[in-house]
Amino acid sequence: MDEKQNLYVINPNSSEAVTLGIQAAVAPLESMGRIICLTNPLGPKGIESQAQADQTIPQTLALAAQVEEQATAFVIACFGDPGLHALRDQTAKPVLGIQESAIMTALTLGQRFGIIAILPTSIPRHLRSIGAMGVQSRLAGDRALNLGVADLQDAGKTQERMIQVGRDLIEKDGADVLIMGCAGMARFRLPLEEALGVPVVEPCQAAVAMALPRIPLKQYHKVGDRHA
Amino acid sequence: MDEKQNLYVINPNSSEAVTLGIQAAVAPLESMGRIICLTNPLGPKGIESQAQADQTIPQTLALAAQVEEQATAFVIACFGDPGLHALRDQTAKPVLGIQESAIMTALTLGQRFGIIAILPTSIPRHLRSIGAMGVQSRLAGDRALNLGVADLQDAGKTQERMIQVGRDLIEKDGADVLIMGCAGMARFRLPLEEALGVPVVEPCQAAVAMALPRIPLKQYHKVGDRHA
Amino acid sequence: MDEKQNLYVINPNSSEAVTLGIQAAVAPLESMGRIICLTNPLGPKGIESQAQADQTIPQTLALAAQVEEQATAFVIACFGDPGLHALRDQTAKPVLGIQESAIMTALTLGQRFGIIAILPTSIPRHLRSIGAMGVQSRLAGDRALNLGVADLQDAGKTQERMIQVGRDLIEKDGADVLIMGCAGMARFRLPLEEALGVPVVEPCQAAVAMALPRIPLKQYHKVGDRHA
Amino acid sequence: MDEKQNLYVINPNSSEAVTLGIQAAVAPLESMGRIICLTNPLGPKGIESQAQADQTIPQTLALAAQVEEQATAFVIACFGDPGLHALRDQTAKPVLGIQESAIMTALTLGQRFGIIAILPTSIPRHLRSIGAMGVQSRLAGDRALNLGVADLQDAGKTQERMIQVGRDLIEKDGADVLIMGCAGMARFRLPLEEALGVPVVEPCQAAVAMALPRIPLKQYHKVGDRHA
Amino acid sequence: MDEKQNLYVINPNSSEAVTLGIQAAVAPLESMGRIICLTNPLGPKGIESQAQADQTIPQTLALAAQVEEQATAFVIACFGDPGLHALRDQTAKPVLGIQESAIMTALTLGQRFGIIAILPTSIPRHLRSIGAMGVQSRLAGDRALNLGVADLQDAGKTQERMIQVGRDLIEKDGADVLIMGCAGMARFRLPLEEALGVPVVEPCQAAVAMALPRIPLKQYHKVGDRHA
Amino acid sequence: MDEKQNLYVINPNSSEAVTLGIQAAVAPLESMGRIICLTNPLGPKGIESQAQADQTIPQTLALAAQVEEQATAFVIACFGDPGLHALRDQTAKPVLGIQESAIMTALTLGQRFGIIAILPTSIPRHLRSIGAMGVQSRLAGDRALNLGVADLQDAGKTQERMIQVGRDLIEKDGADVLIMGCAGMARFRLPLEEALGVPVVEPCQAAVAMALPRIPLKQYHKVGDRHA
Repeated sequence: MDEKQNLYVINPNSSEAVTLGIQAAVAPLESMGRIICLTNPLGPKGIESQAQADQTIPQTLALAAQVEEQATAFVIACFGDPGLHALRDQTAKPVLGIQESAIMTALTLGQRFGIIAILPTSIPRHLRSIGAMGVQSRLAGDRALNLGVADLQDAGKTQERMIQVGRDLIEKDGADVLIMGCAGMARFRLPLEEALGVPVVEPCQAAVAMALPRIPLKQYHKVGDRHA
Repeated sequence: MDEKQNLYVINPNSSEAVTLGIQAAVAPLESMGRIICLTNPLGPKGIESQAQADQTIPQTLALAAQVEEQATAFVIACFGDPGLHALRDQTAKPVLGIQESAIMTALTLGQRFGIIAILPTSIPRHLRSIGAMGVQSRLAGDRALNLGVADLQDAGKTQERMIQVGRDLIEKDGADVLIMGCAGMARFRLPLEEALGVPVVEPCQAAVAMALPRIPLKQYHKVGDRHA
Repeated sequence: MDEKQNLYVINPNSSEAVTLGIQAAVAPLESMGRIICLTNPLGPKGIESQAQADQTIPQTLALAAQVEEQATAFVIACFGDPGLHALRDQTAKPVLGIQESAIMTALTLGQRFGIIAILPTSIPRHLRSIGAMGVQSRLAGDRALNLGVADLQDAGKTQERMIQVGRDLIEKDGADVLIMGCAGMARFRLPLEEALGVPVVEPCQAAVAMALPRIPLKQYHKVGDRHA
Repeated sequence: MDEKQNLYVINPNSSEAVTLGIQAAVAPLESMGRIICLTNPLGPKGIESQAQADQTIPQTLALAAQVEEQATAFVIACFGDPGLHALRDQTAKPVLGIQESAIMTALTLGQRFGIIAILPTSIPRHLRSIGAMGVQSRLAGDRALNLGVADLQDAGKTQERMIQVGRDLIEKDGADVLIMGCAGMARFRLPLEEALGVPVVEPCQAAVAMALPRIPLKQYHKVGDRHA
Repeated sequence: MDEKQNLYVINPNSSEAVTLGIQAAVAPLESMGRIICLTNPLGPKGIESQAQADQTIPQTLALAAQVEEQATAFVIACFGDPGLHALRDQTAKPVLGIQESAIMTALTLGQRFGIIAILPTSIPRHLRSIGAMGVQSRLAGDRALNLGVADLQDAGKTQERMIQVGRDLIEKDGADVLIMGCAGMARFRLPLEEALGVPVVEPCQAAVAMALPRIPLKQYHKVGDRHA
Repeated sequence: MDEKQNLYVINPNSSEAVTLGIQAAVAPLESMGRIICLTNPLGPKGIESQAQADQTIPQTLALAAQVEEQATAFVIACFGDPGLHALRDQTAKPVLGIQESAIMTALTLGQRFGIIAILPTSIPRHLRSIGAMGVQSRLAGDRALNLGVADLQDAGKTQERMIQVGRDLIEKDGADVLIMGCAGMARFRLPLEEALGVPVVEPCQAAVAMALPRIPLKQYHKVGDRHA
C-alpha cells in the first residue's frame, strides 16, 4: 500500500447511510490505497433533480478544498457526477466521478450498457451526461426502479425489482453489461450478476478503481495550469 | 404587446456592464413583450471556468425564486447555460438558455456553426454542452478570441479579432453560420455579418426571441408535475 | 406590432381546410406580427410521399416569388419541409420550415422527442430529415396514427388515437416531449398535453414563433449573396 | 449480357455534353447490361443550388415515367441525388443515385472519404445528404474546385486543380479515398488516382455498378406496395 | 462476360454445404463474371465467436495468397468479415466482405436496416463492425434466430423463424430493409421478401454484386503501395 | 499486495525490447499486484498492418491458454488491441486492451483526445477501433510520427518529434489530452506532459491500471457462460 495515498470520496448528499454503503462498496480496494469517505453535511437527504444536484456543487468544492493538502485524489460519489468538472477546475489532482467511471468501465465489459436508475426523473440527466461523454451509441437503455421510499428500504423487494429492471435492459434493450445508477447499493451487485448472467458495474467501485492507480502513475488530470 | 408578459433575463455574473449589454441586445424585441434584465449580485465579475459557472447556480435559482410570481418566463444569460436544467426543475414556466437557444437558432441558418469563444478554457465546456445537446456533427469549430482584459475593453481591437476568428471558423473549419459565445457583445453582430458574409447569432437575442412567443402559446416546458 | 412585418406561411397542399387549421394554430401569435397564410392551389390534397412533397417545390418557389416584395419572412407549412433549402436559395429573407422549427423547439423542452406521424410511409422521410439535421440521438421514436381518411375526420377518434400514440412514444420509446408531425391539427395540442403530462409542440406555431422575431433583429438567413 | 436489361441513366440537367461524359464513364460496364443515358431537356444547363436541383425533380419523374415500361432500373446522375427518394416512391424498380452509390462504394475502399466539389455552394447540400445517410463520421472533408466556367473547360487546369484539392483532402483532412462530386468528369479519374495514390470513385460508374446486378438478383427496392 | 474475370469467394469455415449454398446464392450473377467459391479446409465447421472468426484470418490470407495470381478480386464470405482489412493489406486487388457489402446495399434500399442473426452471441460482433463502419444510426435492430442445430436443418422451421424475427425487426424496431446475417441461406430470401413486404439482402449476393463490376472499372482498393 | 494476483501482459510482437519497455512502463503499479510480461515468440518484430496484427491473434490466444490456470487477468499490449474480443471469448477472466483502456482513461482526463501514431498506415485501423467503441466525437485527431527505423532508435529525435506531433494535435486539432499510440515508449510520457502542458496517457499503464483492481472486485468480464 502506498503510504502517501489519500483518496477522498465525497458523498454529495447528507445521508450517512449512503456514505457507509459507499465505504462498504470500496472496501475490497483498500489494499490498494487509503480511501476516506466524506459526507456533505449540507447536502440534501438524497439527490433527485438537477436542481438538487447542482446545489451541492459549491458544498462539494468547499469540502474538497478543506482536504486539498492531504488529498492525493478525489472521487465524487453521486451518479450524475455533480461538480466533476468544477472540481477538476479547482484542483490539479485527479478527480473521478462515479457515473463517468462506471460508464468507462462498462465500455470494457460489454458492447451495450444498460443503466438501472432509481427514479425516472434522473434519466434525462443521465442522457445529457452520456451525450456530453459522446457515448450514446453504446447505451442500450436506462430504466428506473421507480420504487417508493418504503420499498427501497426493503432489501428483498429492491433486489427483486433490480433484477426485473436488469432483465428488461438485457432482453428488451439489448444490454450486455449493466450499471447500477446510484451510490450505496453495492451489496446487490453480485446477486444481480448471478441472477442475470452479465457483468454489473457498481459505480463507486469503478471510480475508486480508476482513481487509485493514478497516484503511483503521477497521472494528474491537469498537468500545467491551463487557466494561467 | 402582451401586458402580462414579464420575461426575466438573469445575468449570472455581477457585472452591470454586461447586463446593460444584454439589455441593449434585446431592445429590438421589446415590442414583443416586457423584458426585465437582472444582475446576480453575488456572482463573479466574469465566468471563466466550470467551477465559477456552477457556483452561480444556487444564486440564479434564488434570484428566479424571488421573481417567480410575476415572471412568465426566464432566460439565463451566460454562454454555457449554468443552471438551465436546474431552473427547469424549479419552475414550471419556460426557461431558455442563451447557449442552447443560439445553437438551435444557428441550426436554422446554416449547415455548420462556428463558435467565437472568449477564452480557450471555455471550449471544453462548450463541447460538453454540445454533446449533451447531441448536435456535435453540426459544429464546424470553436475558436477563442484569446484577448487580455485590456484588449477586450478596446472595441476596435475586439471587433478586429472577432472578424479574424470568424474568418478562421469559415475558411479553416467550414462554418456557414457563427455564434457569439458570450453575452453583452451584441453591438458587434451586424459589423461581423457585414465583414464575413454569413449570419451571426447573438445568443441573448436568440434566447429572448425563443422565449417571448411561448407565453401566448402557453407552451410551458413542464406541463404536469413530473416529480410528483 | 411591427407594421412592416408580413410573414407569409405557405401551405404546400391545396387543402383550404388545412390552411384554416394553420391560421387557427398561429392566431395566438398575431399580436407579434402580421401573418398571412397562403394555399398552394396546384398542390395535392394532402402530401403522403416524397414524390408528392418534392413536386410541390417549384410551386412553392413560385408562390413565394409572387409575394417576395411585400414579404419579410416565410414559413413552409408542411411537415417534411419540402422546398425549405430551395426557398432559402431563392430569397435572402428568413425562411423557416415547420419540421425543423418544431424539432429545434422540442430540443429546448425535453431530452428526447417523439413524433406523432399521420402515416407510416412518412417515417423514413422524417428520419432522413432528422439525419440531415444531425439530431438523431435526441429522437426517441416516430410512430404513426395510421388512421383512414374517415377516422381522421372524426375529431374524437383522432384525439384518442393521438393520445395512444403519444403514450407509446413516452412509455415505450422514452420521449419526454412530443411533436405533432403534421400541419392543421393544433386544436389537439392542449388536450394532448393535459392527457400525457409532457410538452407537445405544434409545428406551425413553432415555425411562426421562430420567424416573427427575426424581423426586428434583422436576422436574415443569407447576409451577402453567397451564390454570386 | 442480360437481354432484358435496360438501365436508364437520367441526367437531370440539359447539357448533352454532360450526358456524353456520363456515357463515356459507364462504357466499361456495358458488357454487364444495356445502359441508356437520357438528358432532361427541361433542366438547367448545370445544377448549382438546391433550388435548381429540386426544380428538376418533377421533370425527372416525368422522364422516368415515360420509359417505365421498358426500364429495368434507374440511375439519377446528378451529384446531390435530386429526386432519388421521389423516384423510389414512383416506381417499384431499383433506383440508385450517383451520390449515394459513390459514398457506399467509397466506404468499402477507405476509412475516410473526401469529396471534390465543383462549387463551394454545393457543400452544405452534400452535408445534408451525408447526414441523412448517417455516415458523417466517415467524411474526411468536402472541398470545392472553385473554378470559373472558362477554367472548367480547360482540361489541363481542371485536372491540376482536382489534384490540388484531392491532395488537401488527403493531407489536411485525412481522406484515404476520394469521390468526384460531379457527373461527367470520369476522364480525370485514373490520372487523379495515379497522382494521389488513393482510390478515386467516379459516381456514375459507382451507381451503374450497383444498379446492373440488381436485375438478375430481382432485388427491387420496393417489394410490396407499402403505400397501399 | 469478361474472360479475365476470376472472382474468388472464400468461405472461411470448412463446411462444404455452406460453400454450396454460397455458390447457389451467386449463380444469378455468373453471367457477369467467373465466380469461384473456395472452402477453407482448416476452418471450424461454423463460426460462432470472435475467437473462431479471428483464427480463420491467417488461413484465409494463405488461401488468398495461393490464388493471388489468377484472381482479379476477392470476397470473404462470412458475416462478420473476418480478415477483410487484413486481406486488403495483403493484396492490391479489390476485396469485399459480405457484411460490409450487405450493409452498403441495404443503405440504398431502406432507411433503417434490421439484421437477422443466427446466434445471439454474434450480435456484439455485428455492433462493433457497424460502429467501425460508422452507420449505427441506420441500424434498426439485430435479432437472433436462436435455433438449435437440429432446427436449423429443418428448412421449414428455419424459414418460419426467419419470418418471425424479420417481422419483429420491422414492427418492433422499425426496419424497412432486412439483412440475412449469415452465408448460405439465400434460398430463403425471396420467401422472406414475399412474406414481409420489404427488401431482403442476401450478403453473398451483395458482395459479389459489388465486386464484379470493379474489374472492368479497374477500381482497385489500393492504388499505390501505401505501406512502402 | 494481493498474493493471488497474476496479471499477464502479453506483447503480441516478438521484440523483447518492447516487452522490457512495457515492463518499465508498468513498474510503478507493481505495488498493486503481480504483473508478468510475456513476449509472443512467433510474432513479427513489429506490427505495422492489420494483416500482421490479425495474424498474431491465434498466437496470443495460445499464449494466454498456456497461463490460463495461474492468471487472474490479461492485458494485450499492442495498440490496436488485436485479439481483444477473441481472448474475451476464450477466457472468463478480465481481459483489457491497451488501446481501449488508453481511450477510456483519456476520456476522463480531457474532452478531446489526440493519438500519436507511429505510422500513418495505423490510422485507419485506429479509426475503425474508435468507431467500434463509439467514441469518434471525442477524437480530436490522429497524427503519425512518420519516423524511419533509425530515427526511432534515437531517443532525442523521437522525443522531439513526439512533442511536435503532440503540439499539432493540441493546436491544430484541439486535443486537450494525448494518447501514445504504441507500447514501449513510456519513458517519453512525463517529458511530453511537461513540454505540452496536457495529460498524456501511456496505454500499457492505462490497461494495467484498469486490470489490477478487477481482481479484488471479482469483476470478471463474463459472469455466466453466455455461449453455452
